[in-house]
Amino acid sequence: MQFTGSHILSINQFDIQDVERLFQVADAMEPYAQRAKRTRVLEGAILSNLFFEPSTRTRVSFGCAFNLLGGHVRETSDIKTSAISKGESLYDTARVISGYSDVIAMRHPVAGSVEEFARASRVPVINAGDGPSEHPSQALLDLYTIRKELGINGPVANFRIAMVGDLKYGRTVHSLSKLLCLYNNIHFTLVSPVELRMPAEIVDQLRAAGHKVIETEDMQEGLQNNDTVYLTRIQEERFSHQREADIYRGRFRLNQAIYTRHCKPNTVIMHPLPRDSRAEANELDEDLNQHPSLAIFRQTDNGVLIRMALFALTLGVADSVQKYEEEVRWFTARRYNKPSPPR
Amino acid sequence: MQFTGSHILSINQFDIQDVERLFQVADAMEPYAQRAKRTRVLEGAILSNLFFEPSTRTRVSFGCAFNLLGGHVRETSDIKTSAISKGESLYDTARVISGYSDVIAMRHPVAGSVEEFARASRVPVINAGDGPSEHPSQALLDLYTIRKELGINGPVANFRIAMVGDLKYGRTVHSLSKLLCLYNNIHFTLVSPVELRMPAEIVDQLRAAGHKVIETEDMQEGLQNNDTVYLTRIQEERFSHQREADIYRGRFRLNQAIYTRHCKPNTVIMHPLPRDSRAEANELDEDLNQHPSLAIFRQTDNGVLIRMALFALTLGVADSVQKYEEEVRWFTARRYNKPSPPR
Amino acid sequence: MQFTGSHILSINQFDIQDVERLFQVADAMEPYAQRAKRTRVLEGAILSNLFFEPSTRTRVSFGCAFNLLGGHVRETSDIKTSAISKGESLYDTARVISGYSDVIAMRHPVAGSVEEFARASRVPVINAGDGPSEHPSQALLDLYTIRKELGINGPVANFRIAMVGDLKYGRTVHSLSKLLCLYNNIHFTLVSPVELRMPAEIVDQLRAAGHKVIETEDMQEGLQNNDTVYLTRIQEERFSHQREADIYRGRFRLNQAIYTRHCKPNTVIMHPLPRDSRAEANELDEDLNQHPSLAIFRQTDNGVLIRMALFALTLGVADSVQKYEEEVRWFTARRYNKPSPPR
Repeated sequence: MQFTGSHILSINQFDIQDVERLFQVADAMEPYAQRAKRTRVLEGAILSNLFFEPSTRTRVSFGCAFNLLGGHVRETSDIKTSAISKGESLYDTARVISGYSDVIAMRHPVAGSVEEFARASRVPVINAGDGPSEHPSQALLDLYTIRKELGINGPVANFRIAMVGDLKYGRTVHSLSKLLCLYNNIHFTLVSPVELRMPAEIVDQLRAAGHKVIETEDMQEGLQNNDTVYLTRIQEERFSHQREADIYRGRFRLNQAIYTRHCKPNTVIMHPLPRDSRAEANELDEDLNQHPSLAIFRQTDNGVLIRMALFALTLGVADSVQKYEEEVRWFTARRYNKPSPPR
Repeated sequence: MQFTGSHILSINQFDIQDVERLFQVADAMEPYAQRAKRTRVLEGAILSNLFFEPSTRTRVSFGCAFNLLGGHVRETSDIKTSAISKGESLYDTARVISGYSDVIAMRHPVAGSVEEFARASRVPVINAGDGPSEHPSQALLDLYTIRKELGINGPVANFRIAMVGDLKYGRTVHSLSKLLCLYNNIHFTLVSPVELRMPAEIVDQLRAAGHKVIETEDMQEGLQNNDTVYLTRIQEERFSHQREADIYRGRFRLNQAIYTRHCKPNTVIMHPLPRDSRAEANELDEDLNQHPSLAIFRQTDNGVLIRMALFALTLGVADSVQKYEEEVRWFTARRYNKPSPPR
Repeated sequence: MQFTGSHILSINQFDIQDVERLFQVADAMEPYAQRAKRTRVLEGAILSNLFFEPSTRTRVSFGCAFNLLGGHVRETSDIKTSAISKGESLYDTARVISGYSDVIAMRHPVAGSVEEFARASRVPVINAGDGPSEHPSQALLDLYTIRKELGINGPVANFRIAMVGDLKYGRTVHSLSKLLCLYNNIHFTLVSPVELRMPAEIVDQLRAAGHKVIETEDMQEGLQNNDTVYLTRIQEERFSHQREADIYRGRFRLNQAIYTRHCKPNTVIMHPLPRDSRAEANELDEDLNQHPSLAIFRQTDNGVLIRMALFALTLGVADSVQKYEEEVRWFTARRYNKPSPPR
């Protein structure tokens, strides 16, 4: 892919070389994100953060990534209440807003809307999530995290991942699975209630790519012998009958006791966030918060690096970030944890 | 007008020399808006974007214009839910916010409110729309667009404009009409349902200024032989009887077929946006989206230039913008289209 | 207190030396806030303004203070509608957002929530109000204002203050009272309806600190012979019976006539804002708006200085602000009024 000037709409745009290039640039962003240095490379550039539905974490992550490169950020998270509700088309919004900006990060509840918008935009558009469809920077940061946590240099291969929870509707596990089809020799254990199994076409894609796939509804069995476990949340309203919900409630949770009993030591724990931390949520318990293999906040930290890299590449400045480097003048504690200990 | 330090509240403040000065500065802003260069002239200055009602396009336009000059933007679009609802006066809000800012762009649903606010402000206030009353930067960008589209250098004169749609309640056509009273020898064709005719006092002002004015409810006749057509939206709820709405529905729309049949070739098409692009809206059809004379997105692009010029003039930096010029370090496609072909 | 890297959660953290140091830094911020100069010391740093409930004035004040030091600001005021409502814990939000920012200013409706958040944050957190509990920058700006208005150099002492209105629920008078316990020989007159008296433990603290305290429900008597009067609003719904509300209505207001009759000349008038300016509010009347002793807008101006100082100290740049000083390139009127005339 020619990154400069391109829209980033889907992980389908990426081949292995693209991912490698992106991750290389993301690695180079670490000193800036960690505040060892800062850069003014995008000083004067304008990001329009265009959110048609609220998503605090994603919006702030894109905004901070752009600020870390030195740029300005203009934000809109109140779109529902303005012109769109009067029948303005995505075409019109795109023509107008792209005249104000150098790059746009857009989130929208409707699948395909970001692509429709991008066709009319005069500047690069980065998909920050279009409903059930795509959220490419999330899949990329997940893969980037797996690589760092497992200590893999270069293209990933030869590892075992369990995906747990709502595999039917979970956008993040779909996208990550598709992205992993670029790579070789991965062992997937898909753990979910029968009603919420991974869609058959994605399982087929994984097998066609040469990966091993096991499906199970037994959490204890599914947790065995993995390098990483990727948890997603099951919403009770997904079940067609209350009886199903009752049967499965609490059977796909992870906590310290379950981890110790069933997981290989140092199995990396991932989750796309937000998680429901309330006890009755039966999701990913807070008693693992201090666990060195809990990678969920390293995922969000990595998200900043990935988004910095996407901006740097689409705006064609990946190679000049260092040239406009400056010292950090203020106090900063080292804020990033080391990745998980070796398995 | 002495621009430096002034509030910009109404087009009534402007004489021809003021408009010429403003447009000259707007012209000089084009290289920055088009990203041929950037400027740091307002680096460190703070714009407070104070929106008491949502207006994404206008808010982002003001914000980006200020960023393009190098300044910071602080925004408020949630005012309804905060102190104001507890009985805080505009006087208090103005005293407080003006102590935080270098300039304020304000939008408010109530006519006269921005002027009331400005009287208490300690920094220049730019009216970004106060209900049915004024929205001076819109009228100025409309005039600026007419000038550029028609290829006129200096004060406009000797052209023909049709204004179409809701001329009774449309703030933009009122303001543009008043502004055009500064100039000579313009031919107005006012096309609207009888119930939604241009207010008599504005028609009188136009005639007193020496302009020719024709009023009609016949769209086909009204479209003939103009240099530019300015469309506005008719909201059905404006009619006192459903019968009227039924009679007029779809009779003031413009699409490719109507344009080809009734308009002089290369008649410039303008609209203040947002437009309702849904088919049943009967407004300005999307089949004209690729038409070279469709100027609606050049209008919004020009809005950035006009707002940059207003900031530069009120903050007294119009002559030093170039002095703090720097290169643009990132990739940028040329985003601005050429104006319409000659008529 | 070691300011650098610290959270600012409560006025209880401060001793006299801390307050003196903070005020010294705030004094040094005046040329930047008044636009005699600007500074780039925090260029590249990111403040996350994290507001879980709307508060336009406080949010904009923190944001502008950070911009005045040269930094970027990322804002969230729509948190209610996003992840938190899905059960995300403050712990998770803090881990995530602190990975994006250099410092966080946070407001939340629940007492103790900011402290809980700060325990999980990887960067300094400044409490911008946690419900009924703390709002330290407000108490500090109130004390700073008293000092400047009364012309006191160094620690305050030997002055008389009346606190008026809702002393039972008013967070600002509680915090200011506690802060004044650090100092000597202050005379408090507490004027309120019986139902809304200052909590006994705060009165005890004031007396234990050696201050003189008089409580009264007689406004005329209470206004006599003070150096400053600090007004707060009485909300009618605070009374348990309508009869009480009827008895007290309008008895704790201040206007020009009451001021002239009962206050010592040049008594400084303070109020935490927002005030209800509607006539029926019976609070602080607008007929005092031009009075030279009305300090309410100097309070909000001082708030910017205090917040600049808090950022400069927690980020360890208080001594280098001047080093990165630059000229102000744009027009600016002198926007700050002189403090009150001497009493």
